[in-house]
Amino acid sequence: MKIAVLGTGMVGRSHAEKLTSLGHEVVIGTHDVEKTLANDKPDQMGNSAFSVWHKDHENIKLVPFATAGEFGEIVVNALKGDASVEILSSVKHSLSGKILIDISNPLDFSKGFPPSLSVCNTDSLGEQIQAVLPESKIVKTCNTTAAPIQVNPQILANADHHMFLCGNDADAKLKVTEILKSYGWVSIIDMGDITNARGMEMMLPMWTRLFGALKNPMFNFKIVQNPTS
Amino acid sequence: MKIAVLGTGMVGRSHAEKLTSLGHEVVIGTHDVEKTLANDKPDQMGNSAFSVWHKDHENIKLVPFATAGEFGEIVVNALKGDASVEILSSVKHSLSGKILIDISNPLDFSKGFPPSLSVCNTDSLGEQIQAVLPESKIVKTCNTTAAPIQVNPQILANADHHMFLCGNDADAKLKVTEILKSYGWVSIIDMGDITNARGMEMMLPMWTRLFGALKNPMFNFKIVQNPTS
Repeated sequence: MKIAVLGTGMVGRSHAEKLTSLGHEVVIGTHDVEKTLANDKPDQMGNSAFSVWHKDHENIKLVPFATAGEFGEIVVNALKGDASVEILSSVKHSLSGKILIDISNPLDFSKGFPPSLSVCNTDSLGEQIQAVLPESKIVKTCNTTAAPIQVNPQILANADHHMFLCGNDADAKLKVTEILKSYGWVSIIDMGDITNARGMEMMLPMWTRLFGALKNPMFNFKIVQNPTS
Repeated sequence: MKIAVLGTGMVGRSHAEKLTSLGHEVVIGTHDVEKTLANDKPDQMGNSAFSVWHKDHENIKLVPFATAGEFGEIVVNALKGDASVEILSSVKHSLSGKILIDISNPLDFSKGFPPSLSVCNTDSLGEQIQAVLPESKIVKTCNTTAAPIQVNPQILANADHHMFLCGNDADAKLKVTEILKSYGWVSIIDMGDITNARGMEMMLPMWTRLFGALKNPMFNFKIVQNPTS
């Protein structure tokens, strides 16, 4: 399948690499291709520049957002939360009728770490994206765990932990569930419609604080229930 | 130990009963003892009236908030979130120097289920309570799972799931950890100071939606990590 990943950060790279390894044809979308490839400095988190990563992944084309939007049969939003609505709006026509997998989180680092959320409680980024792209099928998922675990759940406790998803379109959720299963996910909870992005995004203030308390981002939430007889 | 539980709902009753069974001397605090005992109607959730429950638990005295505050060496806040700051302020002097275990959640049901939070993101109920009771040692805990699991973690998956706590006073957190262990908790994560109540309380919008998706409140969060070598 042709899949476009929007965003050149660690989350976007992780999904692009995994989807390529699974046989999909993948492009990554960015604002300015030349500028992205010219930057060779690590980001604030110490992650290597996209240009460095790309030398080992030249089969994954870097293209402008608009080209990526046209290319993808399914599109993955791995943009920063505060850039998502504006950038997705700018390519809205190319995303019409398509599944948009929204991985982003509305993190506000303006007051340092841990970040607060720029939208929460009575609204969510997932809902805001669905509102500006009414013709697209937004499926929120993957936002509650670290990127390496998102695409390779087996690296943590043999995948004995949970992935969540939500969205308004049942068929879109089934298709995204198939992709998650191809990543190795075995425990996936469908939370319901896109308003449930409020719950999923509001786990981030706990996620970031657990990262602080555990001094390690390689964890995930498991929902523990008793076996049903 | 003499422990006062403020609040006559299911959470308060669960802790009062458990603490009594562990040998503590327990009272429950309410606004108006006669009024609470005169009410024999179930609440909106279908839980039996306090007066009905109390017939089987007459060893647990029901007293006015002020009396409860004076009585307790440790005090448990099991009040409704929207009533907590006002009621606790009214008995603030009796709580001076004491540990206050804050179990409450700032749930706003004014627009139905699932509730939103009346405070979140850049503040929390735990912090608001600490702010109005600067001489008390607030320890936030237990708010992220159902009352029966809070006091009997072993009933769910042999207690293989997590309890969190946070607060500004290290010694107070140690004492509360001992109480949690006496309840049966084996996996407890100290999240740090009271500002971490933001993360713990913001799990509730996910908790309430998981309750909806799973159609069962008897679950809890486990933080899954790989074993360290």
